[in-house]
Amino acid sequence: MSILVVGSVAFDSIETPSGKRERVLGGAATHFALAASYFTEVRVIGVVGEDFLPEHEAVLTRRGIDTRGIERAAGKSFHWTGSYVQDLNSAETLATDLNVFATFAPKIPTEYLDAEYLFLANIDPVLQARVRSQMPMVKMVCGDTMNYWIGSHLENLKKVLKELDVLLINDGEARMLSGESNAVRAAEKVMAMGPKCLVVKHGEYGATGFFSERAFGGGEKKLRPFRAPALPLEDVVDPTGAGDSFAGGFYGYLASQPKLTPSAFRTAMFYGGVMGSFAVERFGTERLQDVSRAEIDERFRLFREISHLDTEA
Amino acid sequence: MSILVVGSVAFDSIETPSGKRERVLGGAATHFALAASYFTEVRVIGVVGEDFLPEHEAVLTRRGIDTRGIERAAGKSFHWTGSYVQDLNSAETLATDLNVFATFAPKIPTEYLDAEYLFLANIDPVLQARVRSQMPMVKMVCGDTMNYWIGSHLENLKKVLKELDVLLINDGEARMLSGESNAVRAAEKVMAMGPKCLVVKHGEYGATGFFSERAFGGGEKKLRPFRAPALPLEDVVDPTGAGDSFAGGFYGYLASQPKLTPSAFRTAMFYGGVMGSFAVERFGTERLQDVSRAEIDERFRLFREISHLDTEA
Repeated sequence: MSILVVGSVAFDSIETPSGKRERVLGGAATHFALAASYFTEVRVIGVVGEDFLPEHEAVLTRRGIDTRGIERAAGKSFHWTGSYVQDLNSAETLATDLNVFATFAPKIPTEYLDAEYLFLANIDPVLQARVRSQMPMVKMVCGDTMNYWIGSHLENLKKVLKELDVLLINDGEARMLSGESNAVRAAEKVMAMGPKCLVVKHGEYGATGFFSERAFGGGEKKLRPFRAPALPLEDVVDPTGAGDSFAGGFYGYLASQPKLTPSAFRTAMFYGGVMGSFAVERFGTERLQDVSRAEIDERFRLFREISHLDTEA
Repeated sequence: MSILVVGSVAFDSIETPSGKRERVLGGAATHFALAASYFTEVRVIGVVGEDFLPEHEAVLTRRGIDTRGIERAAGKSFHWTGSYVQDLNSAETLATDLNVFATFAPKIPTEYLDAEYLFLANIDPVLQARVRSQMPMVKMVCGDTMNYWIGSHLENLKKVLKELDVLLINDGEARMLSGESNAVRAAEKVMAMGPKCLVVKHGEYGATGFFSERAFGGGEKKLRPFRAPALPLEDVVDPTGAGDSFAGGFYGYLASQPKLTPSAFRTAMFYGGVMGSFAVERFGTERLQDVSRAEIDERFRLFREISHLDTEA
């Protein structure tokens, strides 16, 4: 089934211990869409400037991604400049040039209105809420956010949280949003704000999923959490977009399943880790552009092997 | 088969957000021995003072632990005072009174010499090496250490590392010992120092095992790593001894197995997490004293369920 994603389509200038790249295609919606495109149909809503050329659009359309919702505006595209030279686990933002993104007002093409799955990437919660309200019939809503919105736009964010089936955030964001340092109590507090499921990402340690029976048509009862591994990687070339790629693999797999079951959620968390592990192997979206479905399946088996007791040898 | 453990038998005064306890039985060898005692025979070598009463010894002997190697010396037992009030994940040491431990010279009773498995708990590497040399016939040697020995006694520690089949340390210690921030490269460097297997503990995120074929009679080839989960816990009463309890569950299970296989190692890592999760539920060794084998098996199943794709529902 089809996913509609709203979020940034941008250019990134990135420095890591492995090297430097200027103005490579990036943005949360781009990474998400590429990762999800290996599992299901994806439609993108975003805004770009005059510097977004046919060659950039082709990166998406080659993967079958529907780009009709990417609006062209006068001026330059959103441009992020960051460095991981000090710490591969944490980006140092050197510049955020919002450009055409500063006045982004998402418009949903009529051809997009029948999408069953909505992904609200990390943008202003006011925009997330606006898109959500224009898609009343979706089967499922999944969202991301970041410390900036939690710290400075909490009331707006809380309105979005009420609408979410699944929230994907990292450890620090879960602590900040809940005011709780204990991971289990933090998850409970966050889920009390709305999300029926919470996936907390732990970077190199994988992710933990928390579920309420509400997610599967039941009551408030908590189900047991689930731990998905991350692959121990010898070489991380560029962590940019790893979280969005996780989200794309996770939600893409879910949208490809006939039924939302706890088992589908667990498998989706594994595919999230798989797509995140590919994303960091090269700069920008390079690896996500050319990975094959066979490689994805092979890595899924590897994730299973490194975490399951009943594997060979 | 029988494990010989050498390490501290001590009293701990502990403050955590859950409360305060004065002079409860603790020490690395105590936590290790109690955790391992649910899987196999355990013999302890350590030293205590005149404050170590029959009631303290009974904590060990009730679990069938052989205490004939615990030497009585004039003076007081090792006493550690620590607080987790600021941060449950990291102990603040308020006082370390070595007392009789300051002049500890491990002596191995002749009845202990046929132990097949040796565990060198976190003590001066000079003492670890001395015990190891007195047990030339053991089938397997597993060891622990800490930042203090890595920082100030590295040359002595390196002699011990050459003798180890398995080293159990945490993330920070692996980084410090290797000078590498990448976990995979850190593991390779540490294993090049001697250990055939390395288990790196990640606290609330579980543990990663790294293996060389040397561990199973093969060559230098690396096997794929293994990720074992930790249980997301709502209430951590006292983290003291969690790492030693992990080691006890891990090594106790290994020593109970007829053959050292990769599969046995993976299962051992799960049992390590299981025993660590019990240890933190109450102060000191309280929980490790009265857990039942049925509870251990039940929690093992839970660890499997929260990390495996093919579980029910």
